[in-house]
Amino acid sequence: MGTLRVPDMLPSPYQDAERLHKAFEGWGTDEKGVIWILGHRNAEQRMKIRDTYEQLYNKSLITRLKSELSGDFLKAVILWTYDPSERDAKLANKALKSKKQGIRQLQVIVEIACAFSPHHLVAMRQAYCSMFDCSIEEDIVSCVSQPARKILVALVSSYRYDRQLVDTDVANNEAKILHEAIEEKQLDHDKVVRILSTRNVSQLKETFQCYNHNYGNTIEQDIKSCGNSILESILTVVIQCIESPHKHFAKVIRESIEGLGTDESSLTRAIVSRADIDMKKIKEEYQNLYKESMEDAVSGDTSGNYQDFLMTLLGSKL
Amino acid sequence: MGTLRVPDMLPSPYQDAERLHKAFEGWGTDEKGVIWILGHRNAEQRMKIRDTYEQLYNKSLITRLKSELSGDFLKAVILWTYDPSERDAKLANKALKSKKQGIRQLQVIVEIACAFSPHHLVAMRQAYCSMFDCSIEEDIVSCVSQPARKILVALVSSYRYDRQLVDTDVANNEAKILHEAIEEKQLDHDKVVRILSTRNVSQLKETFQCYNHNYGNTIEQDIKSCGNSILESILTVVIQCIESPHKHFAKVIRESIEGLGTDESSLTRAIVSRADIDMKKIKEEYQNLYKESMEDAVSGDTSGNYQDFLMTLLGSKL
Repeated sequence: MGTLRVPDMLPSPYQDAERLHKAFEGWGTDEKGVIWILGHRNAEQRMKIRDTYEQLYNKSLITRLKSELSGDFLKAVILWTYDPSERDAKLANKALKSKKQGIRQLQVIVEIACAFSPHHLVAMRQAYCSMFDCSIEEDIVSCVSQPARKILVALVSSYRYDRQLVDTDVANNEAKILHEAIEEKQLDHDKVVRILSTRNVSQLKETFQCYNHNYGNTIEQDIKSCGNSILESILTVVIQCIESPHKHFAKVIRESIEGLGTDESSLTRAIVSRADIDMKKIKEEYQNLYKESMEDAVSGDTSGNYQDFLMTLLGSKL
Repeated sequence: MGTLRVPDMLPSPYQDAERLHKAFEGWGTDEKGVIWILGHRNAEQRMKIRDTYEQLYNKSLITRLKSELSGDFLKAVILWTYDPSERDAKLANKALKSKKQGIRQLQVIVEIACAFSPHHLVAMRQAYCSMFDCSIEEDIVSCVSQPARKILVALVSSYRYDRQLVDTDVANNEAKILHEAIEEKQLDHDKVVRILSTRNVSQLKETFQCYNHNYGNTIEQDIKSCGNSILESILTVVIQCIESPHKHFAKVIRESIEGLGTDESSLTRAIVSRADIDMKKIKEEYQNLYKESMEDAVSGDTSGNYQDFLMTLLGSKL
């Protein structure tokens, strides 16, 4: 369950668009008003507000937000205002076009391919084509070098069966294939790529359990022992996103605020993209893993309107 | 443009469902009535008739058709009555589960991946998951051996950019890559698979033209000179479906009626799946290639209700 709070008495998209327009008018912007409205609407409702705003004022809401807000607050509100498929197409494109291509960038693509529904993944591919005039596969091929390229292309091309169905024989057999590949340090073997990119999530969870049961270590431990290249890091994120997206995003949030300075783009991405999916479970995982409340941690590392907006999405501000 | 003729004064789905029900009642079935209704409705209209029939008579229209019609006529009407994504999921599954896996079977999958829109391909993958409890990629892996498996998985996973956009440098460069792979008889090289499964259709057409221009032969000719294995046949169909789906389906229809006996399943597939897309162009190609009208050829090789139904879809029966 998400942490997004939508009011019982929902204003019409027309009323919301009007109020947003008022928040933009006059001296300075009423940021609290923007948070109050957009921070309490789900994806479908935000989409209707965007459409209505454009009809009423002949200007895109996104463009208007860009001229009214600033900094991390602006970035977070913009991501939240995009349709989720457009948001993820944008995040994936930014990751691919970034100068550095470490795991911090590439994990964004793994998340979209492994921690969301197959339907969302396809919608993102469609949005990517519309927004960037080429397929995401083409951009992966032109921006990412081997061996990461191979697994990323396969992952974004997947359309996993989305119900729970497990074949234990297949799980044991494929645990063996994965184990052999890891032992031979052939992490980009066709069979590994095929298993991770075509099997359904419940089947893969069973395979990882068989792996642990049959070979002593978890598959994550064994992959880590292969070294510390980008491929190992990618596969680790694949496994985390499949085994437990909640745990994965709890970790992303933790890493974004740990130490000196904050990685706002990761923090924003995790909260914005999961607030209306499973943020409740992510908060529980966070508490479990770090013995601290996520709200306390996030509010300790952020400030101002940016903080208010994230807290609203986390459900701790009314 | 298609050859399907929909009446200007369209009856409601309710009226159509009632008339179909009447056609099934009493002694014998009124096959002409079935053709008269279903053979003049587009995919969306057929879907509504199916839904309405089920609501009115508490029985699936498909089940009812199965108990009323028979033979090739039944098979054609059933395929036509399915939603196009379900139809193609069914055709792909039948091809994969067939005992023989020559090009006649596997080309069905290539057609779906290369001669329809990316949107249709994704809808088929979704329907495949719902109907067969696994992804089509999983079935390809378990049913098709290498090297055909690799190219088929990549093709069905594609989501090509669907507008016209061509980069001539890319086309020349990729023509070179294809040429080198063909010279070395490495038709399943990662780069070949990547180019054919990620590039948009207009880009690929340009690449094939550059190939012809820069190396003298068409890419089809050079692939054929590599030998006569299943991989060469698959790549030939890929290129035909991308260069000219019309020509490809004209050939499929020709081959299905040529010589002794008729390959009804190929004939039905080609006509049913293209009647409301581009059958006019396919008929023109047929006339061009074989100096004969397709209607004459098809009607010469078929008979009875089956013939009437195909002729209706070809637009030559009112």
